[in-house]
Amino acid sequence: MNTIGVAFRLTIFGSSHGPGVGCVVDGCPAGIQITPEMIQREVDLRKPSSGIGTPRAEEDLVQIQSGIVDGRTSGTPIQIFIQNKDKDSSKYAAFRTTPRPGHADYPALVKYGKDHDIRGGGQFSGRMTAPLVAAGAIAKALLGSKGIAIGAYSQAIGKVLDSEPYPFQVILEAPKRFTVRAASARMAALMEKEILRARDEGDSVGGVVRCVTIGLPVGVGEPFFDSLEGELAKMIFSIPAVKGIEFGAGFKAAQLKGSENNDQYQVAEGRVVALTNNAGGVLGGMTNGMPLDFKVAFKPTASISKEQRTVDLIKMENAMVKIEGRHDPCIVPRAVVVVESATALVLADLCLRGGFIAR
Amino acid sequence: MNTIGVAFRLTIFGSSHGPGVGCVVDGCPAGIQITPEMIQREVDLRKPSSGIGTPRAEEDLVQIQSGIVDGRTSGTPIQIFIQNKDKDSSKYAAFRTTPRPGHADYPALVKYGKDHDIRGGGQFSGRMTAPLVAAGAIAKALLGSKGIAIGAYSQAIGKVLDSEPYPFQVILEAPKRFTVRAASARMAALMEKEILRARDEGDSVGGVVRCVTIGLPVGVGEPFFDSLEGELAKMIFSIPAVKGIEFGAGFKAAQLKGSENNDQYQVAEGRVVALTNNAGGVLGGMTNGMPLDFKVAFKPTASISKEQRTVDLIKMENAMVKIEGRHDPCIVPRAVVVVESATALVLADLCLRGGFIAR
Amino acid sequence: MNTIGVAFRLTIFGSSHGPGVGCVVDGCPAGIQITPEMIQREVDLRKPSSGIGTPRAEEDLVQIQSGIVDGRTSGTPIQIFIQNKDKDSSKYAAFRTTPRPGHADYPALVKYGKDHDIRGGGQFSGRMTAPLVAAGAIAKALLGSKGIAIGAYSQAIGKVLDSEPYPFQVILEAPKRFTVRAASARMAALMEKEILRARDEGDSVGGVVRCVTIGLPVGVGEPFFDSLEGELAKMIFSIPAVKGIEFGAGFKAAQLKGSENNDQYQVAEGRVVALTNNAGGVLGGMTNGMPLDFKVAFKPTASISKEQRTVDLIKMENAMVKIEGRHDPCIVPRAVVVVESATALVLADLCLRGGFIAR
Amino acid sequence: MNTIGVAFRLTIFGSSHGPGVGCVVDGCPAGIQITPEMIQREVDLRKPSSGIGTPRAEEDLVQIQSGIVDGRTSGTPIQIFIQNKDKDSSKYAAFRTTPRPGHADYPALVKYGKDHDIRGGGQFSGRMTAPLVAAGAIAKALLGSKGIAIGAYSQAIGKVLDSEPYPFQVILEAPKRFTVRAASARMAALMEKEILRARDEGDSVGGVVRCVTIGLPVGVGEPFFDSLEGELAKMIFSIPAVKGIEFGAGFKAAQLKGSENNDQYQVAEGRVVALTNNAGGVLGGMTNGMPLDFKVAFKPTASISKEQRTVDLIKMENAMVKIEGRHDPCIVPRAVVVVESATALVLADLCLRGGFIAR
Repeated sequence: MNTIGVAFRLTIFGSSHGPGVGCVVDGCPAGIQITPEMIQREVDLRKPSSGIGTPRAEEDLVQIQSGIVDGRTSGTPIQIFIQNKDKDSSKYAAFRTTPRPGHADYPALVKYGKDHDIRGGGQFSGRMTAPLVAAGAIAKALLGSKGIAIGAYSQAIGKVLDSEPYPFQVILEAPKRFTVRAASARMAALMEKEILRARDEGDSVGGVVRCVTIGLPVGVGEPFFDSLEGELAKMIFSIPAVKGIEFGAGFKAAQLKGSENNDQYQVAEGRVVALTNNAGGVLGGMTNGMPLDFKVAFKPTASISKEQRTVDLIKMENAMVKIEGRHDPCIVPRAVVVVESATALVLADLCLRGGFIAR
Repeated sequence: MNTIGVAFRLTIFGSSHGPGVGCVVDGCPAGIQITPEMIQREVDLRKPSSGIGTPRAEEDLVQIQSGIVDGRTSGTPIQIFIQNKDKDSSKYAAFRTTPRPGHADYPALVKYGKDHDIRGGGQFSGRMTAPLVAAGAIAKALLGSKGIAIGAYSQAIGKVLDSEPYPFQVILEAPKRFTVRAASARMAALMEKEILRARDEGDSVGGVVRCVTIGLPVGVGEPFFDSLEGELAKMIFSIPAVKGIEFGAGFKAAQLKGSENNDQYQVAEGRVVALTNNAGGVLGGMTNGMPLDFKVAFKPTASISKEQRTVDLIKMENAMVKIEGRHDPCIVPRAVVVVESATALVLADLCLRGGFIAR
Repeated sequence: MNTIGVAFRLTIFGSSHGPGVGCVVDGCPAGIQITPEMIQREVDLRKPSSGIGTPRAEEDLVQIQSGIVDGRTSGTPIQIFIQNKDKDSSKYAAFRTTPRPGHADYPALVKYGKDHDIRGGGQFSGRMTAPLVAAGAIAKALLGSKGIAIGAYSQAIGKVLDSEPYPFQVILEAPKRFTVRAASARMAALMEKEILRARDEGDSVGGVVRCVTIGLPVGVGEPFFDSLEGELAKMIFSIPAVKGIEFGAGFKAAQLKGSENNDQYQVAEGRVVALTNNAGGVLGGMTNGMPLDFKVAFKPTASISKEQRTVDLIKMENAMVKIEGRHDPCIVPRAVVVVESATALVLADLCLRGGFIAR
Repeated sequence: MNTIGVAFRLTIFGSSHGPGVGCVVDGCPAGIQITPEMIQREVDLRKPSSGIGTPRAEEDLVQIQSGIVDGRTSGTPIQIFIQNKDKDSSKYAAFRTTPRPGHADYPALVKYGKDHDIRGGGQFSGRMTAPLVAAGAIAKALLGSKGIAIGAYSQAIGKVLDSEPYPFQVILEAPKRFTVRAASARMAALMEKEILRARDEGDSVGGVVRCVTIGLPVGVGEPFFDSLEGELAKMIFSIPAVKGIEFGAGFKAAQLKGSENNDQYQVAEGRVVALTNNAGGVLGGMTNGMPLDFKVAFKPTASISKEQRTVDLIKMENAMVKIEGRHDPCIVPRAVVVVESATALVLADLCLRGGFIAR
């Protein structure tokens, strides 16, 4: 369904080629400072960038229809609406018969049948992440009021991998300066080249987003099934194109010895700190006071202009499909702020549920 | 919290060093054939194996206290209890003061304070997966009645990686023959050696479990936030020591071109099939008719006998800790059936929610 | 929180004196015929009627912002927005200091403090039932497609009680003809007089709404805690001013003997029917095939123009309050369609959950 | 389903004629003092009393299987099991064919079919309230630690109505002294006579339970759909035989003028108090600092020994049924503690959700 969260709850609505998309955020305490500009700034970070993004030009103007009064949350549900303007549904009809490889077309057609709105991917479109980012801006403001900050960047685009650790301040600020959301100018140049090459080939590339959060108190995350990793993973996998998530050393931890992987403790300036952060800041489903640090794998955009094999579902015979819509050769740069937003939404919920933030 | 699922719902209870552990399964349709032996067989697959597992010897005798009558589910909640017998809590007191690296001790102490039951890891113990496996046996029986089968195996133990694809029947049957739950005799020998080496060094190793499900109808998975990957990831991350999950090509997909990663379709024997399965059987959060295929990364067991750096939380000064309990040098072989069970529980829930299985 | 329902889910937002109110309906199957006019017609039934209602004149124009395409549901969340136009917040400031008796002012101020938006009762206003009615129109269309019909009427206004049983067709049609939503012209005249007398005294009256549903299959209602009565009661008590609910003979059943109260069965035209309907169509939390029949008690409108005793919360001393806003001398006529809508929403959810309506 | 609550969560299991019944309570903070004796004492209050109750003699011995250590909650789920001993299922087979009037037999058979366990009413039996009372004892202990106390009594049995107001201390203590749970000796005698008369006629009577809670802070109850009345009503309607609930003046409020019904405020001993309590302690879905006061209507026991009309579902023809099991001629006395327990469970949940009790 389209609602998530227990104490800080998000509902999204709309579809790629309908009148617009939007969200309702319920459970945000009253009195949090949040201006339309703050929300707009986040939503703008999700817009495609000239050259490396889709030519679809959405203004994505954020309209707050309830819940924020005079730049402060009023304690009632916050509703935000974003109109769709530049929609062009003309090219989608064919996909009802010849589903696009890598897209939700085929399972959606089998599941929802003829009444399913396939235009622009309908509810499976990446456009649904626009209201998610708007909602995330509110969660960020709430968390920010407690000193919690979230940063993310493109750690890999195609075969360009960035293995630098980076101080948090760089992660927080640098990516906004580069359209590919890299953490350094050097990586930005390499990554942009990787995307442009794919675009020129009529192809696409995927990548990895790394997300780091600092300032979290110890103990955020609810018992057993509502672990921090579990709640975060559930949210992250609702972002289209995500195929994997790992915390801290992640899959690499599987190859380490316990003596290498365990983050040993010491006292530093009167606080307990870990000497390493292979755990990614989570133990037993709860934050341990170290930065929350995880990576998300994005597959390459499914829409490519190369001709692909598919089936004609009416005739039940092999067929070919060529996708001519407007698409991103790489979704990763736009997904960086989406991952941040998703993280903010989950952390806001868990902080409220755990009593770390008062309602 | 300790409850998960919407239409097929699991609640677990108990702790590692209390009288026992157990579960309640709610929502299972009436009339499903399930004997105590079927449940016991699954639970036994989770037991430690001599040599490579912990010396803690639990009988793990499954007691069905309600919901199954004459080998059939009655439609009311199913309650199962497993007594703890071989508990030895004597060595846990110290960890209240000097938390073990890599364990939940530190965040749990900060969060729950002095009333927190730390013995055996309390509710953070891997022992909580015993009732999860018992519940999973019921979910497997339900899915099995619809022709859905789940298999998993140790795909990596420490640095021993198994990159064979394997036919499903091998994945379903072979691992039960090897205590390390490898998919072949050759890998079993290598993996066992890897575990024994770690054990002899007073150390531990992690690994990767691959889980494959066949027979799923197309369209299993609910819209947006309740995607198949999301629901599954949430459940899987509640298993202690899990640090990552990836579907199909997963993190490797991030390095592929769209033209390489897209699974193109063709008609085969009157059915739509994909030529590859980089998606791992999931598109748009729904099954696409291909095998559901994902991997789970487990970190090395946190409890090692080597001395480690920690802090004394009372004196707030650096300290050392040595863990003398009985522990598995590698949790992965025992986790194989846990991953299968977790998968079965989520799939049973989503199949019921989507109307693929009638209530 | 502002979300309710499992398989058919409603989220409401907005407040009485903000830009507007609205709702998101999630889980409605695709292909249900529903025009904006059908929704508008229901919402219009909630408008105050000249003379017996508040002079606040809201146009209540329904704007569908997503989920309905060409007069049919598309399967994605349906979002509806209703602008507030005739808002006059000038008279609410005083109630922050001197809370109005019978209103949520006092507990809301204690709970939410200074950031609470008290204008027009904020989120505690009856205005929040406007989007509930809009959502109910969709639920009614869904149920109507399965032959399920819901009717309600003012069974009591103040001391005017209507004890006629009425055939269902009368309940369905007659009340729409009378502004007080009575079931007969004679009762309408008496009830209107009762309201006008209260209004002329600067006072208000309450009443009882009876709601009847026919066409329900046997077995609607989920086990134990999710009983039909329980789910319905939870929804109904979210309607402002509701103070009681009873099914069938209700509180009168408490005075009957078992032999009088039990609804005995017989076969009629090949179907099982009950000779009486003291159960109100519900047994064991499930429908039994008889009409679902329940009554809802509404207290008199709390806002009256008579001067009342209250306290000054700043000075903590006794004070007087006089309410000068525009209010309904009786809320019951407007509440009739709200009760119908609430019922439709719960039944749609339970029918979907129980598999009586396919998703 | 068999789980209820968000932050304080109850799951029940078992059935009337299986091995036993039980519950899991999740979310109770650690460190609450609760002995097995405290739980047993509450459960014993639900036992039938000689003469006025069923001859079924259940020992109802409470076994705590996890979550309570040394008389204190440990913060992990609390599991309690109560064995069924005196079960006699011999007389239930006939009801599969000829459903008992007033029971769940008919809708349950239609809904669940042949696999439904009908013995003793299966999951629709009043026996499921035994674990509810056990869980309620824990909720009472938690609330008691904050000075919140709950009392209830039989306010009406059949035609014997008790309209005395009673001070809270009497409500808390007196009913435990009388097997009919009346609030005074005089009413106890009258009510007992009413029950015995019905029993001697092979008939049954219903009644009304009034429940009062003191010590609640102002503001307990969540916004809109999760109102105190709504959450309470949902829980109360899961108690078998409940047909109505009303808060404060309830259905009588519908006949009052606003000026009569509004509870006006004054300052008394530095606190805000209301001069009357027609609201029953709830405004806008939240507690207002006055006692929470509501009434629950119970229908007469459906099982009576008089012969009744029913249908033969196999032959689809009219038939007669005579119920020979062991039953209570009046369920109300035993329901008094059940209503208290249900109230405690909901209040514990809402107090935790609202941050009035820390987790």
